[in-house]
Amino acid sequence: MSGYERPLRLAMVGGGKDAFIGAVHRHAAALDGRYQLVAGALSSTPERSRASGEALGLAPERSYGSWQDLLAGEKAREDGAEVISIVTPNHLHFPVALAAVQAGFHVICDKPLVHTLAQAQELEQAVQQSGTVFAVTYNYSGYPLIRQAREMVRGGVLGEVRKVIAEYHQGWLATGSEGKQADWRTDPSRSGPAGALGDIGTHAEQLVSFVTGLELSAVAAELTHFVPGRALDDDASMLLRFAGGAKGLLTVSQIEIGRENDLRLSVFGSRGSLSWCQENPNVLIYDQLAAPRQLLTRGGPGLGAAAQQATRLPAGHPEAFIEAFANIYTGVADDIAARQRGEQLEALYPTVQDGVQGVKFMERVLESAADDGRWTAF
Amino acid sequence: MSGYERPLRLAMVGGGKDAFIGAVHRHAAALDGRYQLVAGALSSTPERSRASGEALGLAPERSYGSWQDLLAGEKAREDGAEVISIVTPNHLHFPVALAAVQAGFHVICDKPLVHTLAQAQELEQAVQQSGTVFAVTYNYSGYPLIRQAREMVRGGVLGEVRKVIAEYHQGWLATGSEGKQADWRTDPSRSGPAGALGDIGTHAEQLVSFVTGLELSAVAAELTHFVPGRALDDDASMLLRFAGGAKGLLTVSQIEIGRENDLRLSVFGSRGSLSWCQENPNVLIYDQLAAPRQLLTRGGPGLGAAAQQATRLPAGHPEAFIEAFANIYTGVADDIAARQRGEQLEALYPTVQDGVQGVKFMERVLESAADDGRWTAF
Amino acid sequence: MSGYERPLRLAMVGGGKDAFIGAVHRHAAALDGRYQLVAGALSSTPERSRASGEALGLAPERSYGSWQDLLAGEKAREDGAEVISIVTPNHLHFPVALAAVQAGFHVICDKPLVHTLAQAQELEQAVQQSGTVFAVTYNYSGYPLIRQAREMVRGGVLGEVRKVIAEYHQGWLATGSEGKQADWRTDPSRSGPAGALGDIGTHAEQLVSFVTGLELSAVAAELTHFVPGRALDDDASMLLRFAGGAKGLLTVSQIEIGRENDLRLSVFGSRGSLSWCQENPNVLIYDQLAAPRQLLTRGGPGLGAAAQQATRLPAGHPEAFIEAFANIYTGVADDIAARQRGEQLEALYPTVQDGVQGVKFMERVLESAADDGRWTAF
Amino acid sequence: MSGYERPLRLAMVGGGKDAFIGAVHRHAAALDGRYQLVAGALSSTPERSRASGEALGLAPERSYGSWQDLLAGEKAREDGAEVISIVTPNHLHFPVALAAVQAGFHVICDKPLVHTLAQAQELEQAVQQSGTVFAVTYNYSGYPLIRQAREMVRGGVLGEVRKVIAEYHQGWLATGSEGKQADWRTDPSRSGPAGALGDIGTHAEQLVSFVTGLELSAVAAELTHFVPGRALDDDASMLLRFAGGAKGLLTVSQIEIGRENDLRLSVFGSRGSLSWCQENPNVLIYDQLAAPRQLLTRGGPGLGAAAQQATRLPAGHPEAFIEAFANIYTGVADDIAARQRGEQLEALYPTVQDGVQGVKFMERVLESAADDGRWTAF
Repeated sequence: MSGYERPLRLAMVGGGKDAFIGAVHRHAAALDGRYQLVAGALSSTPERSRASGEALGLAPERSYGSWQDLLAGEKAREDGAEVISIVTPNHLHFPVALAAVQAGFHVICDKPLVHTLAQAQELEQAVQQSGTVFAVTYNYSGYPLIRQAREMVRGGVLGEVRKVIAEYHQGWLATGSEGKQADWRTDPSRSGPAGALGDIGTHAEQLVSFVTGLELSAVAAELTHFVPGRALDDDASMLLRFAGGAKGLLTVSQIEIGRENDLRLSVFGSRGSLSWCQENPNVLIYDQLAAPRQLLTRGGPGLGAAAQQATRLPAGHPEAFIEAFANIYTGVADDIAARQRGEQLEALYPTVQDGVQGVKFMERVLESAADDGRWTAF
Repeated sequence: MSGYERPLRLAMVGGGKDAFIGAVHRHAAALDGRYQLVAGALSSTPERSRASGEALGLAPERSYGSWQDLLAGEKAREDGAEVISIVTPNHLHFPVALAAVQAGFHVICDKPLVHTLAQAQELEQAVQQSGTVFAVTYNYSGYPLIRQAREMVRGGVLGEVRKVIAEYHQGWLATGSEGKQADWRTDPSRSGPAGALGDIGTHAEQLVSFVTGLELSAVAAELTHFVPGRALDDDASMLLRFAGGAKGLLTVSQIEIGRENDLRLSVFGSRGSLSWCQENPNVLIYDQLAAPRQLLTRGGPGLGAAAQQATRLPAGHPEAFIEAFANIYTGVADDIAARQRGEQLEALYPTVQDGVQGVKFMERVLESAADDGRWTAF
Repeated sequence: MSGYERPLRLAMVGGGKDAFIGAVHRHAAALDGRYQLVAGALSSTPERSRASGEALGLAPERSYGSWQDLLAGEKAREDGAEVISIVTPNHLHFPVALAAVQAGFHVICDKPLVHTLAQAQELEQAVQQSGTVFAVTYNYSGYPLIRQAREMVRGGVLGEVRKVIAEYHQGWLATGSEGKQADWRTDPSRSGPAGALGDIGTHAEQLVSFVTGLELSAVAAELTHFVPGRALDDDASMLLRFAGGAKGLLTVSQIEIGRENDLRLSVFGSRGSLSWCQENPNVLIYDQLAAPRQLLTRGGPGLGAAAQQATRLPAGHPEAFIEAFANIYTGVADDIAARQRGEQLEALYPTVQDGVQGVKFMERVLESAADDGRWTAF
Repeated sequence: MSGYERPLRLAMVGGGKDAFIGAVHRHAAALDGRYQLVAGALSSTPERSRASGEALGLAPERSYGSWQDLLAGEKAREDGAEVISIVTPNHLHFPVALAAVQAGFHVICDKPLVHTLAQAQELEQAVQQSGTVFAVTYNYSGYPLIRQAREMVRGGVLGEVRKVIAEYHQGWLATGSEGKQADWRTDPSRSGPAGALGDIGTHAEQLVSFVTGLELSAVAAELTHFVPGRALDDDASMLLRFAGGAKGLLTVSQIEIGRENDLRLSVFGSRGSLSWCQENPNVLIYDQLAAPRQLLTRGGPGLGAAAQQATRLPAGHPEAFIEAFANIYTGVADDIAARQRGEQLEALYPTVQDGVQGVKFMERVLESAADDGRWTAF
């Protein structure tokens, strides 16, 4: 960032009072002072939307009863919202995002982007046509040490990448009686065709891609629902092949009792390796051939520019989930500001292309699983 | 919090462009949307203050050249600041805080509060007379699991407290050539009579007191400066006695190479014990007689009301330093709102009394150390 | 053990001076005083065998030039060896073990048992006919907390087992220029048809089976050699299906730079889960639905009989690899003593059946990998 | 070791059936095959001694009813014991050790060596006169990574040592009703004038001395017994001053519920620091100025000769308590063999001088504590 930037005017679709992820987006937007929440269509009914808007201090006339009203209303105002955050259940991502993009808003959309690859590609095209900024909150790529890993891997520090292991372990859906947050995630009409695969598997895939730049060539997958009667997978494991010969392993689950939000990534190359774990995000384990293990710490010695730029506090003063999430929001704000100055920024936030890739990944995995785990090409 | 609260108008004294702690206060104030930064006297010269103000988007007329001007200017405005954050080097805490309190502002002041017990008590009296809110940013007491520890210890879960170990390990002042952040901290005219003791020892002491409620009865201390030529201690170790027979050990250092911000607390009682470490703040280790160790996690099962109230995210989505710091700011905002509603809140943020206690602690430690470690009564 | 047992007379085939695993077997045999090494055919040439025998204090006439001589010589002595340890490269396991069993010796044989399932079954039959004790040193099943896990899982503590993750990460074969220990392991004529799969994959599979009792129904596998020119796999990943519906994931590698001997097992059930890691073997992580994580420690509270029986030291006095290995040796000695007393023991050491299962596992994995990862039934 | 050494004939005083430490000594003696247990006076009564001897397979005539009989009997035999292990409660160390030394036996004696400095010095003189080997089982100095730390610190790798922190946390004596192992340790007539201080404090002090070579110049100590009615300290904390200006902190406790055998050492120098923890003994944390933390692992890259010599297994195959203890026994055996060959060995096992130092340390601490924590010179 060069000098002070006026806060961007933000509107939010979804994210009403009891929603987990809406509050996260608001904290992330607030942290660096780069956004001001000015409008919302926060819940699925007009009444609940307005109640949520009031609780957040929105002006009554900008607490809309529907997302359609929000887009129209804000479009019409001179001081209307510039950026739309979409934090609804998955099935609303596509219509809201498409309409917002077509109306010329910048968009920050939760993941997985949409239900089908066709929708994803339509959206991607709309973004290209509108020229707006479009970010997908693959928030884990906002962690400073993930950016450090990316810089190291892509800079060749590990040699040739041979093997990647991505794991995302959760246990909060182990019983089938988990309440609202669980309900829509396990309902195909709202969550889409994938359960854990879509909810957290796409995070794991994006992290692999973000860090390594490897291109998936094929997947062999096994999807399972362990909770009786559940309509979507609550567990997914798969083998991966990448262009160029690297191999991978990806496993995600929401029925592993005791695992909270245990996302892990390990990248093994011909000269070294890196390992990182989301629940202890301020440490990156770095191993080299025939040398003692090194622990790279956020804010500590030995880090490159990408990590430093994503860091607010000195080493030992831990940053965590919200700060990483805020790095996405602030990256979007930086990019918008750069574009307004006529500059081009190498933006590290995930874009609509990442969103498309996530949907393609889901489709290929579903296809492989439906075909008894046959290797399915990308 | 009950419903939406209008953001409080915040002014900041100190915290200009290169200052570490000023930025932390701003993030903490922003995170929950409870404050709006409206004014500042951010640096020690008018020019640098205004430059910093501009970089933060302050209106030029509210970016003051001195703290005196700030207090006068904001006092005079109808929409003037309601809360003053004081984030200067230590020697300015006293005059700024006293004037702010006497002018009727709420104050959030960094630690250690002031240089001498006499100053501290004068300030305490002023706060009592003004009836304003006065918080001291012993920010580590904002961590959810520290509040959980407090609830457990004070609720008798550990039985009678026997022994407390407080440690605060840093290494960033190991060489004597560390730059601006180090310079004022090791300069008695700005830092006060204590070095590491004041800078981090007071945090450790406050944590002990906050969690256990034990009252210090005597201290036997050894202060050292290991870096040649340094005017203040960069290392302090001491034995503690508490009223009622508990014992303690407290060690802090800023010359322990490799230690980043390694604050630890262990409390041992007759029926159980608790251990916590700031660099891994989302876990509280809980041991009971003849039972397996339990790991209590922020957001996880088994936590009491105090921890839950200080928590924003589900388990496994780590919260960290800024979130804990924000819990102080948000606690102050809650308290101000409650007072405005005519209600009384059991506020958990550290108050001027905690600040007074910290200064008293410093004085007693200095006294003991000057007397070759003799046990010195409180 | 009930009372003092005379040390068993032990002879060793393989395990000469530079051999890693031979020394491990000798430490394991010595630790509890239950064996006395009396004879050996320690190396692949008579000269080196005798040199090694001298270095170990064997009587010259009992330091044999070949394993054939050893079996014949010891058979002929009144004070001849009772137990034969086979610690040669894999390709010698079969002929030596078969001859030893047929000659009536008890046998402790390293893993993987033999090269082919046909050999394994022939050996199994020979053991049944001879009635001798036959152990396979799947040594990781000797760890006290692995036995605790077994007791808990089989006792239903976790509810129905849903998912198992077994990992065995090593990095010492990452370059292809690792010397003697590496050479035979990557040479099909000595190591057999599997590389990492046989060397460490069989350990992982046996651990799953030992702890859970689940029966493998099918495997879908991907074998890779990342080091150019290597004739055998140095990395193997696979998806598992078990009878009854449980699923699994197994990955092993010897090219993951920085990983030393990182064997891990996690078992997830419908009511709880367990996780264990070989490099930190004195802790077993136990999670239950809606309860704080517990850390079960070797020697600590809450353990069952199986773990206690395998434990020598109080909690906090760590036991490790050799102690676990010794639990196999001591288990064999206990079983021999029980048989001599005419008693039957529920022996927990791995037997020839475990060895057969390991070879079958290798064959199925090789078959699946050769068929592009098709699910291959057991 | 150069080539095969005949096992030394070992006799044991104390260490009968229920004794914890006797079994440890036997495992340690057995592990490397350097000792053969040939005789014992294992318990405090002749009957129990003989029962214990039978359980261990001793010849009846060498299972003595008293230590006096043992020394006399073994002295008289041509194949008599060469080394005497003394594993009795503390009050018997002095008479048994003195008599054994005077009779010309090599001795391995548990710690703390004796009750008083006068006894210690008398024993030291006897050892000098006899010319025998005398080891004190400060077993923690047998850990490979402690030897690595010693080599690094003494080799100047950390620069000038500034601060040392030694901690030994246990919780097993928290209630006062812990049974036999606790009873003698808390009985002054058997344990001596110190409780936790003698039992574990001497270990901590020896580790500091072994690693750093620093000479204690003064101590300021606080001893406490937290369990009502206990006659000896169960908790001790102290500040240390070393010749040359280094400072230290030492705390030990046996009432810290949940702590198993948590011995820790940190050494901070002007250029780097080291940290080690007994419960995770295969890792040594190494920090340097302005460089990422390194983890040195037993058997891993970057280790010096001292650690390598004390290592049996490759990295990742953990060694632990018994292996470290065995390094003391094997060091004694090596030294005896070297002397028999007329060579001189730089032996790293703790000697009678270390034992004397430990008793002196206890006396100074007791003196300081009795004088309200006054700094007491060495």
